[in-house]
Order: sequence, then structure tokens, then C-alpha cells
Amino acid sequence: EVTFDPKEHQHLRYNPLRDTWVLVSAHRMKRPWAGQVEKPPEEHIPRYDPRNPLCPGNTRANGEVNSDYDSTFIFENDFPALQPDAPDPGSDQHPLFQSKAARGICKVMCFHPWSDVTLPLMKKHEVLKVIDKWAGLVEELGTKYPWVQIFENKGAMMGCSNPHPHCQVWASNFLPNEPALSDRCQRAYYKKHGEPLLLQYARQEAEKKERVVVENSDWLAVVPYWATWPYQTLLLPRRHVLRITDLTTGEREGLADIMKRLLTKYDNLFEISFPYSMGWHGAPTGTHLKEDNSHWHLHAHYYPPLLRSATVKKFMVGYEMLAQEQRDLTPEQAAEKLRNLPEEHYKTRDI
Amino acid sequence: EVTFDPKEHQHLRYNPLRDTWVLVSAHRMKRPWAGQVEKPPEEHIPRYDPRNPLCPGNTRANGEVNSDYDSTFIFENDFPALQPDAPDPGSDQHPLFQSKAARGICKVMCFHPWSDVTLPLMKKHEVLKVIDKWAGLVEELGTKYPWVQIFENKGAMMGCSNPHPHCQVWASNFLPNEPALSDRCQRAYYKKHGEPLLLQYARQEAEKKERVVVENSDWLAVVPYWATWPYQTLLLPRRHVLRITDLTTGEREGLADIMKRLLTKYDNLFEISFPYSMGWHGAPTGTHLKEDNSHWHLHAHYYPPLLRSATVKKFMVGYEMLAQEQRDLTPEQAAEKLRNLPEEHYKTRDI
Ligand SMILES: O=P(O)(O)O[C@H]1O[C@H](CO)[C@@H](O)[C@H](O)[C@H]1O
Ligand SMILES: O=P(O)(O)O[C@H]1O[C@H](CO)[C@@H](O)[C@H](O)[C@H]1O
Repeated sequence: EVTFDPKEHQHLRYNPLRDTWVLVSAHRMKRPWAGQVEKPPEEHIPRYDPRNPLCPGNTRANGEVNSDYDSTFIFENDFPALQPDAPDPGSDQHPLFQSKAARGICKVMCFHPWSDVTLPLMKKHEVLKVIDKWAGLVEELGTKYPWVQIFENKGAMMGCSNPHPHCQVWASNFLPNEPALSDRCQRAYYKKHGEPLLLQYARQEAEKKERVVVENSDWLAVVPYWATWPYQTLLLPRRHVLRITDLTTGEREGLADIMKRLLTKYDNLFEISFPYSMGWHGAPTGTHLKEDNSHWHLHAHYYPPLLRSATVKKFMVGYEMLAQEQRDLTPEQAAEKLRNLPEEHYKTRDI
Repeated sequence: EVTFDPKEHQHLRYNPLRDTWVLVSAHRMKRPWAGQVEKPPEEHIPRYDPRNPLCPGNTRANGEVNSDYDSTFIFENDFPALQPDAPDPGSDQHPLFQSKAARGICKVMCFHPWSDVTLPLMKKHEVLKVIDKWAGLVEELGTKYPWVQIFENKGAMMGCSNPHPHCQVWASNFLPNEPALSDRCQRAYYKKHGEPLLLQYARQEAEKKERVVVENSDWLAVVPYWATWPYQTLLLPRRHVLRITDLTTGEREGLADIMKRLLTKYDNLFEISFPYSMGWHGAPTGTHLKEDNSHWHLHAHYYPPLLRSATVKKFMVGYEMLAQEQRDLTPEQAAEKLRNLPEEHYKTRDI
């Protein structure tokens, strides 16, 4: 009788936020890689580039001139996927050809006036400014829209076309698929267990420790038990918080601290500016502000694509697209690796 | 009052196979692309490479020697994500830390002895051999396993690490997420409307014509109304067919014909060997063979990543990962473009 070892034996793990399973086949890391290698991220970016539309004082595609900002800077996306005034498609009544109106607004937020910094290289009080602006945008757009999606695509590998540190905010008149699914799952869990899913989860992980990457008195960053991306993490407040707007000043400072530490570890993993897509999920807004959303718990997802090195990513293709996500190292292995990395950034270590 | 134009006005479309929505923002194609460009696929691949583990007569990583095959060739994956004998993880009873045993088998099938051909460049009778082997594998592995996933990752861009034309077959003791979701959706539709979802859909599309790419008397290839990838297609038989094993000889010949024509158009779009992940979905097997699965209809999904050219793909990142998939041209625009391409392959055109 062989005893089960998650590092050696493939198995399935349940993702309670999406009601799906992930196939964990850690022994697959042994296979050699002869496939595509990526260009490592550009390490030498000029602090100011006169042709970069995101730099202070520069002119953007639509002729608008950026202010000479010295902190964060917010403007409307020049090529928005969501506009406030799109007409209604009307409805073809056939159930297989259903369409709906989509309205919204897309904003861009520069994190810093310099192009050669990223969140982990920024000062804590500068990261705090970003957090305050995130909360401000959710506050402002959330009065009108049921969903305000804050997300950052970092690195060319993640479709980011501008090296200047920035994120996007897309607010919509509909609840998109992912938050709608997460809402259903958290609601059902709350109904059954009488406690918010992610609040219980944060407490469990804080005790178990094996998947914790970094923590402080207000926050916890873990490689979730059900992670699909190799070094995926989930960032959670310890207190029950519904939305980013509800964070106290102390919790915002704690968030700046844990973000800086988590992202420094990410950069240190392969000694490059670590690519990822990240985003915030909190209770819906708009008309949902008046409802009871106690089943929700604020959290950020980080989805980094790299698997083996600065140039070899995990391809979510074939089996993953058609059948089910599959990962090649255990979440515990990933957490341990990240946990053991220094908290000083490789770029500032030797200065 | 502005009248709705799907090419100009963003809107949502419903995917009845996954119970999700896609955001269609065709006006986004106007934005310039300053982001990552891919290496175009290698055009000059040697017919035989003594170091390629997939070529006839060569030795693979585990020391096994390939037969001197002159048609298709099937062997067990040397680095399988699923093995037949993994022990059970046992079950941590906490609902947030659920795992399950995963068992199965992973096979690889070479389509042809030559490395420098692909399905569209193969002869129709050679493609037919591939189809017969697909059916044979589902027949064989389906006696034991509830799900047999046939999939092809084509091109380095899609994580394929070997240019030799081949696909994979992963059979599992569980129904993976995607087919489980599709099963639920098709079942609910059948119950409500008394007809299989995709059979009704095929008939509607055959009449409407605007999303049809290629067709013959037995098959239809369309850019589905709810496509997320720019040039995604759905391949459907006209007759109600549950599984690939149920196809008649005539339908297999028709499939070889339509595959060759569809894939030739794909290659002709940007005059490269067009990358994609594709796979078959049919009614589940194993113990499901004894159940009534009339709600199912056999189909293949093609998911190609390219958007603008041979080197600029669609990035499914940030908003797509965290919120909802978004596309930059309408399915009708994509279908029209593919439909208007010649059916003679650009590589053989001038011979
Ligand atoms: O099995 P391969 O070709 O080595 O690997 C490829 O296909 C697999 C199944 O879709 C994926 O899990 C891998 O990420 C991908 O690189
Ligand atoms: O908006 P950007 O940065 O031009 O574009 C990037 O992010 C978007 C939102 O995730 C994606 O739809 C695009 O595919 C990606 O290239």
C-alpha cells in the first residue's frame, strides 16, 4: 500500500470560490521543457520617456495632455472597452442568440510619475496613495455601477503594452461572470455554514501556516489550497471587510506593507520584474450597496504566469481550456519557495 | 436615438454551453498595439530530425523506440499528468480543504510520419486515419473512463513543445470542469426545450449563414455567436450524434473534408501555420454509456490565440481573468473574414 504524497501523486483539489476542481500533478515538473521561451522583462526602462503617453506632461493619443503629476494620476482610457452610452441591442428572442446592453466606464491610474519603478520598488507611503485612490474610485464609480473591477496587467507577457506602472478600472452596469460566480459560491457557503467563506479560510490558513507567504497583523497572503497558476496568491484581510472602501487607515497601511513584501518576493523569485495580472474582488456596489452582503469578504487575486524561470511560463492550453486546469507543483511547494525568499528587493539589496 | 450596430457598440452575448457572457467591444480594434509581439511560427521544419522523439524509429526520453510507422502512431505520454494507480489522498473533512483521487491515462498520437506536415497539408485519406484512431481511442479508453479528452496544442504559442504533428488524449476517472459544465447546460436546455441545444443551434446557424465558415452535407463550422477567442470556431455534425464513435463512414469522410478546409483557411488568414488548441466534446463514457445522454451533441472547439496578425495575439488577462472575457471584433466579422479566404493552402497554391 503506497501512502499518498501530494508532491508525488496527482490528485484533485476543490476551489470553493468557483465551484471547480484543479488537477495537481506535481511530478510533471520532472519533464524537460523544449517549448517556447519568453523574452525576459526589460530591466532598463528610462525614468521619463517623451514618447510614453503615461508620463507626466505628455500628450496622449486623443490629444489630451497629462498633468505634471507627482503622485498618482487618473484619466479615462482612450480606447475603452466600455462606454457609458452604448445603445441597447434589443433582443432576438431565441434562447441561443441572446444579447444584452453593456455600459460602463474605463479608467487608467498611473501609480507614480516615474516609469522605472513598480509597486515593490515604491515607498510605503506611495503605495498607500495608490490604495487610497483605489478606494476612492470604488466609492465614486460604485454609486452608479454594480461592479467596479480594479486590475493590473504587469509585464509584456501579460498583455501590458506600457512599462509605466499603472492599473485599470473598468466599471460596468452588469455583474461580470467571475464575480457573479464568486457571489453565488460565497452566498451558498454562508447560508450553509453561517460564516463568510473567506473569513473562515483566512483563519484556517493563519493556523495551518503551510501556505502562508507573508502576513502582518491585518493581512494574510497565501497560495490558496486550490491555486491554478504556479505562484498564484490570495490576499485577505483578517477582519471581516466587505469592500476596499471599508478599510480603516491602519488596514490600508498594513495593506501597503504586505503588498510591498509580497511583490518584492515575487520579483526576487527569478530576479526579474515579475509579471502577473491582479485584481480586487469585494461585495458588489450600485444597488447592491443597500443589500445584505455579509457573505462577501474583500480579497485580491494575483495570477502570475511564470512556472520554471524568468522565461518559461505555464501554458493554460489544450487540456486546461477544454477540460480542466492542471498545475505542475503543489501550492505548498510554491508557498514555501516564496516564503523563504528575502524581503529585500534584489535591485536595492546591494546599494 | 442611435441605432444599435454590433460592430460599433459594445454589448454582451450569452454562451448557452457555459452559462456565461462575453463582452463584445469591436470598436477596440481601432486602438494601436504597442505590446508584446510573438515569434511567428517556424516555417522550415525538417521532414525527419534524428533528435525529435516523435519521429519514426527514434528513441524517446524513457528509452523506448518508436516503430517505423508510416501513418499514425500512438504511445503513452512519457510525462503523464494522469497515471492509472495514484493513491487516494484520503479526505480532510473541512469543506475548504477538499481533495479527491485522480486517476487516468495520457496518450500521444502522431498524425503522420513527417514532421513538416500539419492536418491541412495532409491528404484527405490521411486525415481520415486520424479520425478513425480518435474514435478507436474513445472506444477503448471509454470502456473504463467517464471522460476521454482528445486535444491538440498546435504551435509554440500554444505551449506545444514539438513541431511534429500530434495530439494528446487524456482519459480520467472524473468528469473535468468544462465537460461537467457543458453537460449541465445541455441537460437543462434539453429538459426545457425538448431538443438538444447544439442540434438546434446547428440548424439555426445553417439557416442564418452569417457565422458559417465552411460546410458540407454532414458538417458545419461556425464562429459561434458567443465566441471569446478572435477566430474561435465550433465544428458540428448536422445529424444528432452523441460521440465520435457513433460517426458513420460517410460522416468521417465529411469530417476529414471539413477539417482540411477549415484548417486551410486558418493557415491562409495570416499565411502561417495557424496556432490553436482544439479538442472534442461528446457525451461522457464509462458508466455513462448506459445512461440516456440525448441532451449531448458531439462537437469540436477550436481556440486560436491570434488577433491582429501572425505575431499579435489576444491577451486573455486582467479583466478577462478577474471579471469577464472581452473580444475586439464581432463573431460575424471573424466568420466573414475566414469565409472569404481561399480553400487552397498558401503553401501549395503556387506549385
Ligand atoms: O503536455 P505538453 O505538451 O508537454 O504540455 C502542454 O499541454 C498541457 C496540456 O494542455 C499543458 O498542461 C502544458 O502547460 C502545456 O505546455
Ligand atoms: O487595455 P490594454 O492594456 O490595452 O489591454 C490589455 O488588457 C485588457 C484587459 O484585461 C485585455 O482585454 C487586452 O487583451 C490586453 O492586451
